[in-house]
Amino acid sequence: INSKLPNIETSIFAIMSKMAHEHHALNLSQGFPNFPSDPALNALVDKAMSDGFNQYAPMAGDFDLRMEISKKIENLHNHFYNPETEITVTAGATQAIFTIIAATIERGDEVIIFTPAYDCYAPTVELFQGRIVPIQLKPPFFRVDWQEVSDKITSKTKMIIINSPHNPTGMLFSEEDMLQLQDLVEKNNLLVLSDEVYEHIIFDGNTHQSASRFEALADRSFITASFGKTFHNTGWKMGYCAAPEKLMKEFQKVHQFVVFCVNHPFQKAFATYLKDANYYLKLPDFYQQKRDFFVNLMKGSKFKINPSQGTYFQMLDFSDISDEGDIAFAERLTKEYKIATIPTSVFNVGGSDFKQIRVCFAKTDETLAEAAAILKKLP
Amino acid sequence: INSKLPNIETSIFAIMSKMAHEHHALNLSQGFPNFPSDPALNALVDKAMSDGFNQYAPMAGDFDLRMEISKKIENLHNHFYNPETEITVTAGATQAIFTIIAATIERGDEVIIFTPAYDCYAPTVELFQGRIVPIQLKPPFFRVDWQEVSDKITSKTKMIIINSPHNPTGMLFSEEDMLQLQDLVEKNNLLVLSDEVYEHIIFDGNTHQSASRFEALADRSFITASFGKTFHNTGWKMGYCAAPEKLMKEFQKVHQFVVFCVNHPFQKAFATYLKDANYYLKLPDFYQQKRDFFVNLMKGSKFKINPSQGTYFQMLDFSDISDEGDIAFAERLTKEYKIATIPTSVFNVGGSDFKQIRVCFAKTDETLAEAAAILKKLP
Ligand SMILES: CSCCC(=O)C(=O)O
Ligand SMILES: CSCCC(=O)C(=O)O
Repeated sequence: INSKLPNIETSIFAIMSKMAHEHHALNLSQGFPNFPSDPALNALVDKAMSDGFNQYAPMAGDFDLRMEISKKIENLHNHFYNPETEITVTAGATQAIFTIIAATIERGDEVIIFTPAYDCYAPTVELFQGRIVPIQLKPPFFRVDWQEVSDKITSKTKMIIINSPHNPTGMLFSEEDMLQLQDLVEKNNLLVLSDEVYEHIIFDGNTHQSASRFEALADRSFITASFGKTFHNTGWKMGYCAAPEKLMKEFQKVHQFVVFCVNHPFQKAFATYLKDANYYLKLPDFYQQKRDFFVNLMKGSKFKINPSQGTYFQMLDFSDISDEGDIAFAERLTKEYKIATIPTSVFNVGGSDFKQIRVCFAKTDETLAEAAAILKKLP
Repeated sequence: INSKLPNIETSIFAIMSKMAHEHHALNLSQGFPNFPSDPALNALVDKAMSDGFNQYAPMAGDFDLRMEISKKIENLHNHFYNPETEITVTAGATQAIFTIIAATIERGDEVIIFTPAYDCYAPTVELFQGRIVPIQLKPPFFRVDWQEVSDKITSKTKMIIINSPHNPTGMLFSEEDMLQLQDLVEKNNLLVLSDEVYEHIIFDGNTHQSASRFEALADRSFITASFGKTFHNTGWKMGYCAAPEKLMKEFQKVHQFVVFCVNHPFQKAFATYLKDANYYLKLPDFYQQKRDFFVNLMKGSKFKINPSQGTYFQMLDFSDISDEGDIAFAERLTKEYKIATIPTSVFNVGGSDFKQIRVCFAKTDETLAEAAAILKKLP
């Protein structure tokens, strides 16, 4: 058998979580919380099962849930997605991202991504024989140079993939960034995949500039978001895709053959929970407290830190500590210091490596304090 | 936006279930039970959530669950799949089927399927630019002509997709069928996708001839199965893929980008439940009782019936009742007689239509009696 993805190995998240386990290390690598999600939400799942929602959900998702998603987006971003035709519930944002690319990218299409980039974009584009055009985000602030983006657009460019707040760097797109993007995609007739899974985890009073806020951009964008990231249950594998009807129609054609539909009792539970949760209003403060707690504890360490603007990740620059490559450094941290992180070069797509590692601060204060104490020991 | 699947519309299951709803019809169309799954299993889901299994599962699936799957296959078919490297838990069999095709089929590859065929195979192959080579199964018994299969194999043939017990016809592959298949795939160096989602729903004392029972065949096969079909909870979206390590490696490369992993609490629940369920031993009798109940009640109707050999579907030949096409007939049944079924021509891939409709008998005896009473009224 010929490999269709010859350069792909097991994902870094699986590798680092395994290494963390083997070395009894604190696991700040893969992005997930080590505290429980709301027991009231668990109870709603239980109720949905007892109420008999155990057979296929509608292909696009439970209608009540789609309505709640639509309302939420309208409340936050003043844009209306029709729950009948413009929203689909997915088995996590990963499945949404895969399906968006599957529904749109054909042999030879060029797709612009910003590197470092979340690990699934490039291989999925490759699987559909598209060509990745990477644009380097540079430390310390990882801002996008829109002139460079404009220069890299060709007649073959089909899509730009954005991800704000940005994993792994914690960079946040400003309103100005979005306007620049809108201008480029209109002029060049491009599609946008807007990965907004950390939409509710944004700090320092900033606003999430969802692609849905910009009319002409919304008209060309597939937006994806994640319940797991928002409600502390990454293992429930629930997310959604929102897009204008003409795009959603193509998405659903593929979606129905990727999974047909998504876990029904969990959808019912979220449909009820979202009705009065307004949970997302509390989330920025919750995570800002964690970011500040961790960043403050790290004062006096040898790592250089620019506080994350969003996501539950913080980059740590170790250039004053070691000349090692980031992979070697992260390995050594795990084995010698018993703390697992993600070397950021694994997110590089044709870009250069930095002396930076990524830590996940979606952890109890106790874990964060323990982690900071260890990291401060590095000479 | 250019459609990558220009000929695909909303799936027939969504259409018929919607039509059933609108006309207050008995819904025997989409395949799902109208009775509850085991409350003890629901309780195990609840326990898994309280026990904190709410974050990402391992990419290949919860290890305990993979062990139980491995044991089950070894018990039933005397073939060992290594749970470490040869089994992956999926978001339903649909996701497994999609991923198998995504991992193997490239532009120009030919894929043999038997038509009528379950609706997801052909569009998924098309999405990866493979070419479908359909082989017609003919009423009344829908047996495979292996000489014809042999004649249709070319240097471009990459895979044969089989599905036994067969949806929609209820046909069952015999040991002889499997030996013929094994012979062909060995000689021609082919892969097999064996869709075994109805593996435990087999009647009249027959044995399920899993591809895993035949050594040389197992060595070239991806097998997929479904917890939803077996445990009466199609809406939980859990299944798995088993394959030799060299094939599973390619499967997992794609799987990690399709969904990364599958709902964790449900995996934990099944891992515990399977330890002492042996549920599958009772399933054939349970469904044979339903098939017999329904087929007996239909005696004296104008439909011609060959009792299903497996699956929870029964084909009904209406050629003595009407000259209509099967789609028109099924529509009329829904609107006038308030009973929704599936016209079998929707499963046709380049084949011919029959005057047959499919009913799902995974229903309470009460529903089946009501359905038979209506169907017997047709003049
Ligand atoms: C799907 S596992 C990776 C989780 C994650 O989003 C991250 O760690 O970046
Ligand atoms: C995925 S919905 C279709 C269910 C089914 O297997 C069938 O009705 O054939």
